[in-house]
Amino acid sequence: MLDPRVILGPADLTAAERERIFEVASRLKSQPNTAPVPSGLRVGALYFNPSLRTRASFEQAAWLVGGTCQTLNAGADTWGLELDPEAVMDGDKVENVAEAARVLGQFFHVLGVRSFRGDGSWEVERTEPVLRRFAQYSNAPIVSLEGTTHHPCQALADHLTMRERLGEDLSGQPVVLRWAWHPRMLPAAVPHSYLLESALAGCDVRVLHPEGYDLDAEILEQARTAARAGGGDVRVSHDPRDVAGARVLYVKSWGPLGQTGPNPDDLRADWQVDMDLVGRTEEAGVMHCLPVRRNVVISGDVLESPHSWVTQQAGNRMWAQAGLLSLLGTKVGVL
Amino acid sequence: MLDPRVILGPADLTAAERERIFEVASRLKSQPNTAPVPSGLRVGALYFNPSLRTRASFEQAAWLVGGTCQTLNAGADTWGLELDPEAVMDGDKVENVAEAARVLGQFFHVLGVRSFRGDGSWEVERTEPVLRRFAQYSNAPIVSLEGTTHHPCQALADHLTMRERLGEDLSGQPVVLRWAWHPRMLPAAVPHSYLLESALAGCDVRVLHPEGYDLDAEILEQARTAARAGGGDVRVSHDPRDVAGARVLYVKSWGPLGQTGPNPDDLRADWQVDMDLVGRTEEAGVMHCLPVRRNVVISGDVLESPHSWVTQQAGNRMWAQAGLLSLLGTKVGVL
Amino acid sequence: MLDPRVILGPADLTAAERERIFEVASRLKSQPNTAPVPSGLRVGALYFNPSLRTRASFEQAAWLVGGTCQTLNAGADTWGLELDPEAVMDGDKVENVAEAARVLGQFFHVLGVRSFRGDGSWEVERTEPVLRRFAQYSNAPIVSLEGTTHHPCQALADHLTMRERLGEDLSGQPVVLRWAWHPRMLPAAVPHSYLLESALAGCDVRVLHPEGYDLDAEILEQARTAARAGGGDVRVSHDPRDVAGARVLYVKSWGPLGQTGPNPDDLRADWQVDMDLVGRTEEAGVMHCLPVRRNVVISGDVLESPHSWVTQQAGNRMWAQAGLLSLLGTKVGVL
Repeated sequence: MLDPRVILGPADLTAAERERIFEVASRLKSQPNTAPVPSGLRVGALYFNPSLRTRASFEQAAWLVGGTCQTLNAGADTWGLELDPEAVMDGDKVENVAEAARVLGQFFHVLGVRSFRGDGSWEVERTEPVLRRFAQYSNAPIVSLEGTTHHPCQALADHLTMRERLGEDLSGQPVVLRWAWHPRMLPAAVPHSYLLESALAGCDVRVLHPEGYDLDAEILEQARTAARAGGGDVRVSHDPRDVAGARVLYVKSWGPLGQTGPNPDDLRADWQVDMDLVGRTEEAGVMHCLPVRRNVVISGDVLESPHSWVTQQAGNRMWAQAGLLSLLGTKVGVL
Repeated sequence: MLDPRVILGPADLTAAERERIFEVASRLKSQPNTAPVPSGLRVGALYFNPSLRTRASFEQAAWLVGGTCQTLNAGADTWGLELDPEAVMDGDKVENVAEAARVLGQFFHVLGVRSFRGDGSWEVERTEPVLRRFAQYSNAPIVSLEGTTHHPCQALADHLTMRERLGEDLSGQPVVLRWAWHPRMLPAAVPHSYLLESALAGCDVRVLHPEGYDLDAEILEQARTAARAGGGDVRVSHDPRDVAGARVLYVKSWGPLGQTGPNPDDLRADWQVDMDLVGRTEEAGVMHCLPVRRNVVISGDVLESPHSWVTQQAGNRMWAQAGLLSLLGTKVGVL
Repeated sequence: MLDPRVILGPADLTAAERERIFEVASRLKSQPNTAPVPSGLRVGALYFNPSLRTRASFEQAAWLVGGTCQTLNAGADTWGLELDPEAVMDGDKVENVAEAARVLGQFFHVLGVRSFRGDGSWEVERTEPVLRRFAQYSNAPIVSLEGTTHHPCQALADHLTMRERLGEDLSGQPVVLRWAWHPRMLPAAVPHSYLLESALAGCDVRVLHPEGYDLDAEILEQARTAARAGGGDVRVSHDPRDVAGARVLYVKSWGPLGQTGPNPDDLRADWQVDMDLVGRTEEAGVMHCLPVRRNVVISGDVLESPHSWVTQQAGNRMWAQAGLLSLLGTKVGVL
């Protein structure tokens, strides 16, 4: 585990911290109309990539714990940030991450950062260079609002949703993380985080994807070890219909790691999710992080059916993040 | 009247609700320096079209009732929203309004949406397809922050301003809604809303515009019925100087419905508002929703004269919207 | 001094007001985790030029005094503002500053405005035409968030930092404001404000810059008068190494007034700040408003050394602005 003040992925929270997060989340969710207890918590959220859902739920999460959250947009085009503290900055980069992180770390008690589209190879980007630089120089805790490898806030919402639906003890629960066809090759942070989060919860995780779409080997191994310790396992299959027994069907598209561009059309028919596929599960709940392309990734009738948990799952983004901010606010002495 | 939780135009509020709104607005306005009473109200404001005035007044309105408002920009370019829940989404639209509305409806107790520039014909756009889809799927009340047909928040501010100037009982008051020349053909939401709002207040409404600039026939008929029930009437004239007796001169440019492009230059001279025209009224107050092109739509000396109510009218945006949010917050059990 | 409700530069605050600001800033800074005392203060911040640091620190400053701050972006491209109230607005400008200022002045108790890149000559722009128009028409106090001539909020943070490091009485303290090479010719608001602020504090100010990079003659004279009254003086030199005895080395690049474009390369070697230069001072603290180009303007080893005050200085933006908003909030009767 990294420094506990840096949340880059599911493994950066202990089991006890996760329990604490869900406890606060559930308590706040049970009284959604109550005025927050005022606190001094100042949260910043810095986006190097666009966001609508995360920025809404993260700002409201800060409000729910009595604090304030300010969203800052830092498109690579508009604010060239130099990651190398030794660089001679006579090009187009105007600020070094060392200064940026130190300054923002003074304005905010907690700093969320989204950065998932670097220019480097997968081997470089998987080290989360931007987020780690912020963590290195900031005096405030850093929370990934989606990096290259993980999306820990989404994972907390996913976990909370499974607990609400299947009970607190998820050990041994059969869940399926299933690839879906999408016109474009998407980042893999969400599937990595669901894989690891459900493994940490002890689920029995099946990962279904076409050949050539392997997830990160190290994260896979980390998840396998965690799942086995908790009463489950991790297994990979290339059969799109290998969903028998599943209680959760987590649908998500991703590209071969580090690649962009279109996905091949010949995968489309086999890998869409429809009622037929859901019928092969054990009354599984269908999860997806949204936005979802209707009738391409998941059919409309599945999304409109009682099998769909996607609305609840998205709503839990706010409550789970409120739990996380409550935890971090306590750690830094504000709450 | 629509579902009371959906405010698309003036007719979506009852007379009693409007009274309640003005009562709260006036009370808050009378103590502008007082700290708000904290509440749990979370308001979202989603803009498909740009805004500066509305976003400022709407955010501050939420703050005035002890809540928070988060502004979200959803330019059609940056967040392609599919309005048809049955669509096969393999094009450039990444999210269906069904999911978007359900998600945002969980984060916020009240959701404001601005969407006034669709691609369809007037017959399609006048049904407010975007706003109605949000209303259909959101669990939270929807407030139009300017649609194609109406701008209900502007109408409330207009009404509040008339009450402050002319007294609470506006029945039979002679008011003029007068077209003005503007370089471009503008949307008609504001004139429609002023027409209907003043008619609902029982005013005697004269609508002046050049031939070919007719307002929506159905809204005109709805206004006429409402005005007659309240002691007034609605009459249309093409004479730019037909302002005798008017106590209000509401100035606004609009284009032939559904059209864009430049307005013909030959209308310019006759349709500008200057001191001569104001002198033909019964000491009318001059109203305009702003922004206004000085010395083109209204002359500078009118705007600087005591006849101008435009500053007060703009300020009332904030107070009237605070009244509206107070009403809706009460309806959803937060306030 | 201007109308006390208009803060365009350091001279628009009295010594007593400045003391009050620092007192509040220091008190708030000493309890950074405490929940703010709720107030009704509504602050607006309107940006005609981009900002990340100022918008973060200014919003958080409002929060620290129990209020709210709303940031509004008004790029000249997206919201053409006409500065002449007599203009016939049939071109591309859609709103007159008279209306804009009156409206925003109703929504907010205090209005911050950033506008430092006008199209006019230095003689025109140095009169701060945008900021002064806002001051003329707004009913609310106006605070420059960086104009053409001054950046008063930066000056307060600079002054607070010097007090924290060198003690409250700065009279006679030898400080150096030193030009540095930068690829582009930058605005001069920050050096002007440091010059005048340190002079008002009674410092003994040396200004070092290459020939042809003179600061504004009137501001220089104003600073000289102020410094002499307080026990110091202002002296200009073109020697980049004239730093002996300095307790502060304030580094900043600027262009010949009113000019843009690249700076000549032949100035680069002599005007960079490195450990050798710092060693020639009297253990001076190195200040810079940030962002700073590492190893071009200031070397990385200086920035990482105990000589660097830049992080503390940037953090003080928030606390100093909270002090300023506290002062203004009191003046308008909200706090």
